[in-house]
Amino acid sequence: MTTLKDLQVIIDEAVKKLTYPAHPADLYEPITYILSIGGKRLRPALVLMACDLFGGDIQDAISPALAIEVFHNFTLMHDDIMDNAPLRRGRETVHQKWNQNVGILSGDAMLVEGYKLMMQVDNSILRPVLEIFNKTATAVCEGQQIDMQFEEQSNVQIEAYLEMIRLKTAVVLGGALEIGALIGGANEKDADLLYTFGEQLGIAFQLQDDILDVYGDPEKFGKQVGGDIMANKKTYLLIKALETADADTLTELNHWLSLKEFNAPEKVAAVTAIYNKLQIKENAFKAMQAYADTSFSALEAINLPAERKQYLKEFADGLLSREN
Amino acid sequence: MTTLKDLQVIIDEAVKKLTYPAHPADLYEPITYILSIGGKRLRPALVLMACDLFGGDIQDAISPALAIEVFHNFTLMHDDIMDNAPLRRGRETVHQKWNQNVGILSGDAMLVEGYKLMMQVDNSILRPVLEIFNKTATAVCEGQQIDMQFEEQSNVQIEAYLEMIRLKTAVVLGGALEIGALIGGANEKDADLLYTFGEQLGIAFQLQDDILDVYGDPEKFGKQVGGDIMANKKTYLLIKALETADADTLTELNHWLSLKEFNAPEKVAAVTAIYNKLQIKENAFKAMQAYADTSFSALEAINLPAERKQYLKEFADGLLSREN
Repeated sequence: MTTLKDLQVIIDEAVKKLTYPAHPADLYEPITYILSIGGKRLRPALVLMACDLFGGDIQDAISPALAIEVFHNFTLMHDDIMDNAPLRRGRETVHQKWNQNVGILSGDAMLVEGYKLMMQVDNSILRPVLEIFNKTATAVCEGQQIDMQFEEQSNVQIEAYLEMIRLKTAVVLGGALEIGALIGGANEKDADLLYTFGEQLGIAFQLQDDILDVYGDPEKFGKQVGGDIMANKKTYLLIKALETADADTLTELNHWLSLKEFNAPEKVAAVTAIYNKLQIKENAFKAMQAYADTSFSALEAINLPAERKQYLKEFADGLLSREN
Repeated sequence: MTTLKDLQVIIDEAVKKLTYPAHPADLYEPITYILSIGGKRLRPALVLMACDLFGGDIQDAISPALAIEVFHNFTLMHDDIMDNAPLRRGRETVHQKWNQNVGILSGDAMLVEGYKLMMQVDNSILRPVLEIFNKTATAVCEGQQIDMQFEEQSNVQIEAYLEMIRLKTAVVLGGALEIGALIGGANEKDADLLYTFGEQLGIAFQLQDDILDVYGDPEKFGKQVGGDIMANKKTYLLIKALETADADTLTELNHWLSLKEFNAPEKVAAVTAIYNKLQIKENAFKAMQAYADTSFSALEAINLPAERKQYLKEFADGLLSREN
């Protein structure tokens, strides 16, 4: 089994070889630009891993892996417009560097490029692969819409939040794995199980993200610890706190949420103290663990020798014990 | 052969049957809304006509025809954002009725829905059909990007303009016909010829649009005659006038183009007078006729009895002698 690092190198090399027409420059340069900003290439690596898991040749999975990466970056390009974000991974976002219309149209072209890459599979699996891709793309749009609604909603329920992160984040991990499995020659049942592994892992991954944003080690966490608290972001932690707080604690929490101006470290400390009092971290960790367990059960149920699945198991363990 | 009117009814009925999930409402309601605004359904009708031309069952072509219509409306939804347009066919645009983010995201979901519908073809033609769809979608994005660039460009060349309208408008007509031909069982050569028929007809159609905007009968033309002149829109007529005017006429034309405030009927009359002096209408008509001729030659070359092709010929004649 190729190591994750090797897979990431393979993908980085393949991304560099993706070339687009020189004209119209404002349509294609943003695609090359956003793809060059990088990221961990985890999603495309999952396509390759899944293909390899079932004994397929990872060369056959490279274009579909790129399709997943191009698709993911298309969603980032459009999400950044919707979120009015000036920066992405420390670099200017496309709509900031060019303009909004370029961001919209270049993103549209990118989604089409994703389909072109995804079609580079054998005829025998073309339809099922594209059906998974369609389903994934629809889920991500739904998840993003629900996420935007949450911003204007005061009473988000924990179940709705979990469904949102499933749609917006987790389905892509599942879809990437399921597509890779089909390329690798898996039967439908095993491909489904691998989808579930990825989907449930994706939810666990996002819950961990929520935890790290508050409880991450400032030395190791890439972003500013407490960013979600400062922005009143409706994470698992905040929703759970609002749900479980007694009357006085709720008043205090709502006070911090209502402040238009505040001292940031003070707000972060105060809200974190509330979370601590309510044992939100433990609660979130438990929820994360439950999703991880479901994920691992699906992996175990796949009809392959345990040692063959060890690599994915370790990969998932690694993901869920990360500190950034 | 079913009449165009009947085909439009078939499509309208099929559009009404397209149902989307109730939630998230802001993702799916705009899709139903923009599709309900209507339009002439010419593009999907072309898919059905082409299928029928080669002896196929038009029932097999309905979903792909809807795919073309959904795709077309996706481009309208995003173009309206980019053009900052408040109205579309007299109704509020999606970004105006909801908001911009809804327009972006709902459009994205719509493109995916287009792919889902386009995939409802036999496995034997799935790949070529999707390849045409991809090529078409890419062309439309390129055309829209070039069109936006033209707005900020003072020296647009006539060749560049013709290439822009080919990409933005004509390729979809060609693609719709080519896909319908494949569904109807055409061989690659005949499908290609029908593509050329549609593409060249599309360019002729757009040139006629440019002519009608200035020379249309105000009683019959749906929009305000002279709209392009008021907006300094770079049409075939304006570009040709800028290209062929002598120094004095050019100065006069540029004067009208430079005015920030003007009396609209006065400007329309003055620019039309310049066009008349330069015989721009005749020139544009000649260009339109040349594209129509190429279009008809391609249709003639298709390996089918002439009487079978008569219907499409008449349809094209009808399109090019329209008054609105």
